Order: sequence, then C-alpha cells, then structure tokens
Amino acid sequence: MFKGIGASPGVAIGKVLVVEHSELEIEKRSITNIDEEVTKLERAVEISKEELTKVKEKALIELGEHEAEIFEAHLLVLEDPELIDSAKAKIRDEEVNADFALKEIRDMFVGMFESMDNEYMRERAADIKDVTNRIIRHLLGAKIVDLAALEEEVVLVAHDLTPSDTATMNKSKVLGFLTDIGGRTSHTAIMARTLEIAAVVGLTDITTKAKDGDYIVFNGDTGEVILNPDEETMNKYTKLKNEFEEYRKSLDLLKGQPSVTLDGRHVELAGNIGSPKDVEGLIKNDAEGVGLYRTEFLYMDKEDAFPTEEEQYEAYKAVLEGMDNKPIVIRTLDIGGDKELPYFEMESEMNPFLGYRAIRICLDRKDIFKTQLRALYRASVHGKLRIMFPMISSLEELLAAKEVVAEVKDELNAEGVAFANDVEVGMMIEIPSAAVISDILAKHVDFFSIGTNDLIQYTCAVDRMNQKISHLYNQFNPAVLRLIKTVIDNAHKEGKWVGMCGESAGDQRMIPILLGFGLDEFSMSPISILPARKLITSVSYEDMQNFANEVLSMGTAKEIKAHVEKTFNL
Amino acid sequence: MFKGIGASPGVAIGKVLVVEHSELEIEKRSITNIDEEVTKLERAVEISKEELTKVKEKALIELGEHEAEIFEAHLLVLEDPELIDSAKAKIRDEEVNADFALKEIRDMFVGMFESMDNEYMRERAADIKDVTNRIIRHLLGAKIVDLAALEEEVVLVAHDLTPSDTATMNKSKVLGFLTDIGGRTSHTAIMARTLEIAAVVGLTDITTKAKDGDYIVFNGDTGEVILNPDEETMNKYTKLKNEFEEYRKSLDLLKGQPSVTLDGRHVELAGNIGSPKDVEGLIKNDAEGVGLYRTEFLYMDKEDAFPTEEEQYEAYKAVLEGMDNKPIVIRTLDIGGDKELPYFEMESEMNPFLGYRAIRICLDRKDIFKTQLRALYRASVHGKLRIMFPMISSLEELLAAKEVVAEVKDELNAEGVAFANDVEVGMMIEIPSAAVISDILAKHVDFFSIGTNDLIQYTCAVDRMNQKISHLYNQFNPAVLRLIKTVIDNAHKEGKWVGMCGESAGDQRMIPILLGFGLDEFSMSPISILPARKLITSVSYEDMQNFANEVLSMGTAKEIKAHVEKTFNL
Repeated sequence: MFKGIGASPGVAIGKVLVVEHSELEIEKRSITNIDEEVTKLERAVEISKEELTKVKEKALIELGEHEAEIFEAHLLVLEDPELIDSAKAKIRDEEVNADFALKEIRDMFVGMFESMDNEYMRERAADIKDVTNRIIRHLLGAKIVDLAALEEEVVLVAHDLTPSDTATMNKSKVLGFLTDIGGRTSHTAIMARTLEIAAVVGLTDITTKAKDGDYIVFNGDTGEVILNPDEETMNKYTKLKNEFEEYRKSLDLLKGQPSVTLDGRHVELAGNIGSPKDVEGLIKNDAEGVGLYRTEFLYMDKEDAFPTEEEQYEAYKAVLEGMDNKPIVIRTLDIGGDKELPYFEMESEMNPFLGYRAIRICLDRKDIFKTQLRALYRASVHGKLRIMFPMISSLEELLAAKEVVAEVKDELNAEGVAFANDVEVGMMIEIPSAAVISDILAKHVDFFSIGTNDLIQYTCAVDRMNQKISHLYNQFNPAVLRLIKTVIDNAHKEGKWVGMCGESAGDQRMIPILLGFGLDEFSMSPISILPARKLITSVSYEDMQNFANEVLSMGTAKEIKAHVEKTFNL
Repeated sequence: MFKGIGASPGVAIGKVLVVEHSELEIEKRSITNIDEEVTKLERAVEISKEELTKVKEKALIELGEHEAEIFEAHLLVLEDPELIDSAKAKIRDEEVNADFALKEIRDMFVGMFESMDNEYMRERAADIKDVTNRIIRHLLGAKIVDLAALEEEVVLVAHDLTPSDTATMNKSKVLGFLTDIGGRTSHTAIMARTLEIAAVVGLTDITTKAKDGDYIVFNGDTGEVILNPDEETMNKYTKLKNEFEEYRKSLDLLKGQPSVTLDGRHVELAGNIGSPKDVEGLIKNDAEGVGLYRTEFLYMDKEDAFPTEEEQYEAYKAVLEGMDNKPIVIRTLDIGGDKELPYFEMESEMNPFLGYRAIRICLDRKDIFKTQLRALYRASVHGKLRIMFPMISSLEELLAAKEVVAEVKDELNAEGVAFANDVEVGMMIEIPSAAVISDILAKHVDFFSIGTNDLIQYTCAVDRMNQKISHLYNQFNPAVLRLIKTVIDNAHKEGKWVGMCGESAGDQRMIPILLGFGLDEFSMSPISILPARKLITSVSYEDMQNFANEVLSMGTAKEIKAHVEKTFNL
C-alpha cells in the first residue's frame, strides 16, 4: 500500500504499464564519416517533426487549442536553427556522434534557460528537453512507448508524464495515472482532471515498485494505491469504482438543470477562468456564467509591453460571445503581490501581499487602468458584462475607481463608441476593512464578490503560501465566516447580490454554510460546478440556514470543520 | 523660510551656532621619524580616552545609564587592539602619517561593518566613525567645538548631532537643534524629545544657509524654520513660544494628578517600554503603569544565545520593582516579522509580516516560551504583573498559550517556587480575526490590549513600512475604528478591561474617539502621557461618547480626521 497525493478523482483497477523516460546512456564516440552522421541527425529531426505534427493535430481535435499549443512550441524548438545547427557544427568540429553532440548542446541551452529564474524560460527549457529526448531516442533506435497504440486497458505508471504522453495516448484504454513526482497543480494532475482520468501523484518511487503487468488498484480522492491487491481489497475497490461511476453519471444528468435547492432557492454556479480558451471547459461543465475572469494572464502572457486596448477588447469579446449571453464578471488588473509583469518594473517589497498591487497600481497608473476599462466597455456590447475591482480597502478607493469608469464612459460617448448601458460594476471583498464597512460600500456597487483566498490571509494575518504556518490559514476560522455573513447581509439590505470567487466557493464542505448564509453566486474551478449543483439540489435552503446558524455559534475552526464533515458525510 | 520634519515640540528663538563634523582634509605624507608618529597617535588616543571617560560620567548623571552606554561602547572601540594596532602597523609598514593611517584603517572597518546589513553592525560602524574622528581631530589639532563650555544661549545647527554632542553640551544654553538629515526616530530627534529641547530635522542643507551668529526662529511642531526673521515674524514666534511654555508648565502641574474626565470617568495612562532602563522616563512623566513592555529587546540585545531564565527574571523584577507596585503589562516574545535574533535562524519568508512570528514561534518552540513564562511568574512576586500574548488569531492559539502557562505554574508549584496568584493574563488584539471573535476570546482572558500598528496593517492589507501605499495605512479608516469599538464592547460585556498600546493610544486626535469608545487603558510613549492627561481631564466622557458616535457614522478616514481636527483645534 502506497500513499500519494490524490490528484484526480475516481477509482482505477487494472494492469500496470510503466512509461519510462529515463535518460538514455549516451557515449561520446569519434566519427569518421561526418556527413553521414549529420544526415542521421537530420533524418531523426525530420521523423520527430512528422510525429509532432501528427500529435499536434490530434491534440487540437481531442484536447483543444490550449493543449495543442504545447506541440506548436515543440515544433518551433525543432525549427530553431540555434539548436540543430549548433549540434551539426559540434559533430563537424569535434568529429563526434550525433546523439552526443545534441545532448551537449541541449544541456547548454537547458542550463542557460533554467538559470534565468523566470517561469517562461523554465517552460522553454522543459520544451527543449522533451523534443531533444525524442530526437535522441530516434538516433539510438530506442523504444518510444507508443501510447497511441495501446490495445488493452492499463494504468500508466511513470516518473512523470510529459505533454506528449498525455496528448498522444489512446485515452479509451487509460484507466489511471500514477507518478513518482508532482503535486495537485502539476501537468499530470491537471491533464488527469481535464480528461477525467483518476490519478495519484507524488508517490516518490512507484516506478521502482510496480512492474509491467502487475495488478494495481487506487483511489484518486484519497491517494491510496495498492499493488497486487488480495481478493477482499479487489472487491472493496470494485464497489468503490461502481459508486464513483454512478456518482459521475448522476453529475452528467445535472447538465442543463438549474441550481435550485429543494425548497426553491436558486443560486448561480459560475466558473473562474484565466483566458478565453477556458470557455470550453465552462461549457463542458455547464457553468451558468463566469464569476471571475482573471485578466492578469492577458498581461502576464505579453513579453514586452502592456496588451493594447485592441488586444484586450478581442479577449473580452471572445469570452462574452463564447458564453452565449451568460453573465461574465471580469476583474480589472490584479498584478503585484506574487504576480509580476516582465515589462513593468516594480520595486521589490518586504511584504508584497501587503503592498503595491491591483487597484492600488491602477489608481496610481490611470493610463493602464483606462486602457483596460475602455476595452471592457467596448466589449460590453457582445454579452452580459460585469466589471469588478480587486483589493479595495476603503470607500475612497471605490469612489476613485468609479470616477475613472465615468471618465471612460464620457470619452467613449464623446467618440461615439457604443457600449452597453447595463454593465454591472462591483468590487471584490478580500480585505478585512472592506468586509467590515460593507454596509457603506454596498450603497455604491451593483454587487460584491468575496475573494476568500486573500480574505482569509489578511483576516488571520497568514501568508497562504507559507508552509510553516499553514495550520493558521483556515477557511473555517469563525472570524472569516462571520465576515462573510456580514458582507452578505449588508449587501442584501441594499438589494445587491453577493458572489464568491475564492477556493471556498467550490469546496463541498463550505457550500452548505455559504448557501445557508444566503450567497447568491458561487464561482469555482469548472470541474467543481456539477458536484456543487448536486449538493445544492439535494438540500433545502431552510435547513442550510439552520445549519449555518449552528456553525456560527461555534468558537473554533476545528469544531466547525468536524461538524460539517459529520453532517455531510465528507 | 525652510521646512523640515518637526522632531521635538517647542518654539526656539535665538542665535545660530554651527556645529561642524565635516570630514577633515587628510593628506598622505611620508614620515621619516616613525616612532615619533606612533607616539603622536598614542597620545591622541590617550587624550580621547580621557575625554570620553569624562563625557561618559557626565552622561551617566545627566542622561541616565542608557545614554551613557554609548560612550562605554566608544571607549571599547578605543581599547580594541584591532583598530589602533592596525593603524600603528600601517604607520610603520608604509611610513605614512598617523592621521592618514588611522583614516585608512577606519574606512576598512567601517566599510566592512556597514556592508553586513545588520543593525548592530551598522551601529558599531557609527561608533568607530565617531571615535576615530575625535582622534584625528586631536592629531590635526583641529578645533573640537566644546559644547560643554557654551556661554550664551544658542540654536545648534549641524549636519547631524552625534551622541557625544548631545551628551556633553551644556543643555541650559541650548535653545534648539536644527539638522540637515534625520527623521523622527533618529538619534538627534530622540535626544531632543528626551531633553525637551525643540528640534527640526531633515532640513537638507541648513548648515550651508545658516551662519554663526545669524538669528533664527523655528517651530518644532510644524517643522517651520525662519532665518533672520523680520520683526513681525519675531513677534509671532515670541507669542507662540510663550504659549508653548505655558502649556508645558500646565503639563507639569498634572504630575501626580489622576486621569479623570470632567464627569468622573477614570482611565489609566501607561507607558510603552523596551527595557528596565526606560522606567526612569516613565516616572519622570508620571506614568500610571506599563501598558507594553516589549521583551524582544531583551532577546535582541543578546549576541549568541537566548537570555537565560535568570537574566529574564532580573529584567522583569527590575521593572516591577522600579514601578512601585503599579501594573506592568509584559508582552511575551514578539520576534519574526521585521525583528530577528542573531542566534535564532529563521527561514526567509516572502511576507514576514504574515509569517512565522511572535506566539506562532512560541507555541512551536515551547522551550523558549516556557523559559520566559517561568521568569515572568518568578518575578511576579515583586509587583503587579500582567502577561499578554502577541499575534493571537484564534481561540485555539489562546487556549494553547494558556495551557503552557498552566504547565509552568504546575512546575513552579512542584518546585516550591513562589509566584503571585493575581497575575492577569491577556492578549493583544492586533489581527482582524481576533477583533471579530473578541466576544469569544473575552471569556478566556483577563484583558485585551489593542495593538493598532498591526491591526491597521492587517485590516487594510497595507505594510506600514511601505512608502508607496502609506496613504492607505490610516488609523481613521472607519473599519479600524469599528473593530476597536467592537473589541471594547465585547470585553466590557464580559467584565474585562481593554487597553491600547499602538501609536494611536498617544495620539491627541485619536484619544477623544478612544475615550468615547470606552477604552480603559492608554499605553504610549512616556512623553505623550502628560499631554494625554491634559486632554482627558479637560473633556467629559459623555461628550466624547457622543463625539465617537458621530465619528462612527462617517464613511471615510478623511471625513473623520477632518472632524476630529476641527472639533479639537488640532
């Protein structure tokens, strides 16, 4: 029995196929026929190029544009003269074998990129490794496990799975993934959830324990893995698997259904996205709107300048049109904190989470802010737009932000540019001060959206990234729950609605409490939407109100968590 | 007219005396009689030593032990063979003049210490500069302005004043300080307030504008300085000066008086201290107790190990006995954040203010915590002790801390060690979550002390050290005021008292609001105590309650600040 990190829910039972990506032994050899060696390299590159083109096309159809882009990047690496030409030059200059020459050049580039301490460059380094590994395997005639040609159902066991693996494999034959490394947000974990394949990651050394043909069972929720199980265990897991499949089917049945409690309270279940490409996942999971479009990715994806008004307009328009007139909450730029832009220098700060970020930057740099607001209002004619400001800590800031909105609308009017008249303007509640004066703020907004990630962090004075004090970062902290309740009550008194776009909104243990508090909109990772609908449609609002009141009477997070888990069998 | 930073209140009118510390021109010369040159250096060191010994004795009598320590440190520098012997070796090896040799050695040490990026080492660098400057002046026969021999009243104008200057000067002749550099917490500013001498610092280039014998007037509150004023200005400042002196006299009359409002509400005006040496200032300013003894200085002053139980016991005992049975609130260790210990390695954190600090460390490292609690309880027999925990964010932490207290008391009982039975145990309210659940926490403490510095910082998500967003760090933020009011109300419902030990407690603009909220204890910098008593004894509690309610009805910090300033003519 092994214990890893449950990365994608589901139970798998089946035979092991070990996918090896171990480094091949490459020896340096002297070469006499140099032209032949160069030709060998060119041929291996050519074959790799053909393969990758096919993989890319397959990915485009089966996984969508976003995943296919990885292979576009791989093809670009192959076509980069710096890499292949340098390898050729090395073969000629040093009279060495092609695989050795390519390995040396690869190590140089990878070392250089990895040392740059920049997310983008590290990704390029990973691309180069993946592509050169493919060429070297062709040069050496090494086996390339062809996951596209799987004929029997298997559980893939690997040190880690590469984008090529997940894109090419015959998904109908893959029962699950088990990997030595990775966390909940690693590539393998994300792909597993996207493909709805059960997965456990971070198993340390499963590749050395499991052999091809071994029988294995595992639970992608709990992270439990059992190799060569006995009959009793098999029966237990078979039962679990059936239950899970029934649950999944019941979720499918909820597609197209409203999110209404047994006693008729309707709430909106929306999704959090970072790019127009994510709309696909929203539609697949039947999201009723977007509760948080994080526009900072639009800015972070650029390398040398802020996105233009036109570029932003296109992105916002794509989401508004893509969601078929469902409401879309777009958050204005939220950089700073842990999010930097390569082309916007920010002074290093002692406590960036308590620093110059989000609306604080936008109110200081109105040029940046106005460009975004112009793009947003121009896009507003293409759907149902809601705009929200992040990191508001006082009424002054809210009024200042609204003033800029008014200026932008005046400008567009003067220019004769059309925009929707029913754009809702709201703000995030993620700073304790905003929650405490939400009665005052509610008079000046159309809605609130509670950002629990930051709200918990500031309310409890705990950096949510700091492992050393992670036990103090707790969504069940009664102070956090009271602030949430206060915000909802204050908004409702003014006839305004309240959403939530932090991780708590999609958490099965928080949903009953939030529902009972009267939360109107829940915005979450698309994959959590149908499970949330299942929960909401199976309870009554009145019961949840009573339940929430019980919770509010408790003094510690521990007590509250235990009470939720017991009541809802979680 | 110049504008600097008002560093010490009061109005000064008088003649300028420029105190120069400018670097002397030092030339490198070849020396033939080397022994004579070494003897010259030894003589200059000897004279400096005699002078410093006298200065130290004078400081001990007039300024107290703490100030005198600076000169003890200077004497240690003089006796450090590394410095003087290195200079001698340089004279011999390079056959150069003593002043040049000493300057070179000094620059080497200062450069080394300054580069260490450690407060303690930077202070050592300053000591070395001050001492070597004195020796070099003797070597060169340069004038050393003898501030002890001042015969007429003067306003001292300097680039900056050194500890030697402030310790040796004939204070009865010094009307004020004006300096080019420094802020409200620089040495000059602190000394000016201690000595009750008016001062303006940070004037940039006042030393190049004012000449010896010029007439000058200035206001240490507003930072306004006027050189060679006309008659009208003179009359205006003379009037201001008289008013200020009457105000100061009226404060003196308040010594020994109770802090009671016109309608009979008594509050406690206590002081914040960092060391037993600060007790002197408390007594001088008639503090009614200590509201915050920051024990971290006891830890920060040590270089290689935690202070022992015995060392701590002695310190706590000294304060308890020194304050003559007045109540002393001692805060348990609050390191982390921006406070480090040289002998306790802490991982570097992305957001130290939201990190592993204070009670979080103490509950993790119970050995450290227990040693302090044992010392505290042992000292409790010597006075009226109150213990408080910093950075509590949940009931769980409070109960865990109290559990350790119970263990310590059990241990002491088992050992037959005496301790007081009436030690009050409380906690700071400086994290928003604690304020929000103060009704729950109040049941488990004897008192609360609100730490506004951190409370504002977390409530508004603003690093109080970050200049770029300092406009958002505002004690008048209505959310902060509401939280303070909530805490006071919740504590009073449980029959517990509430103090405040953040900077707001001594702020004349905040005192009326806090008094109106019902705050029981105000703990501040000793210098603020008598002005606070003056304010409190001149208003009625009922009026302040009404005033506080008016403030609570306002939506912005700006409005509230303006209302206070207008109402109280500030």
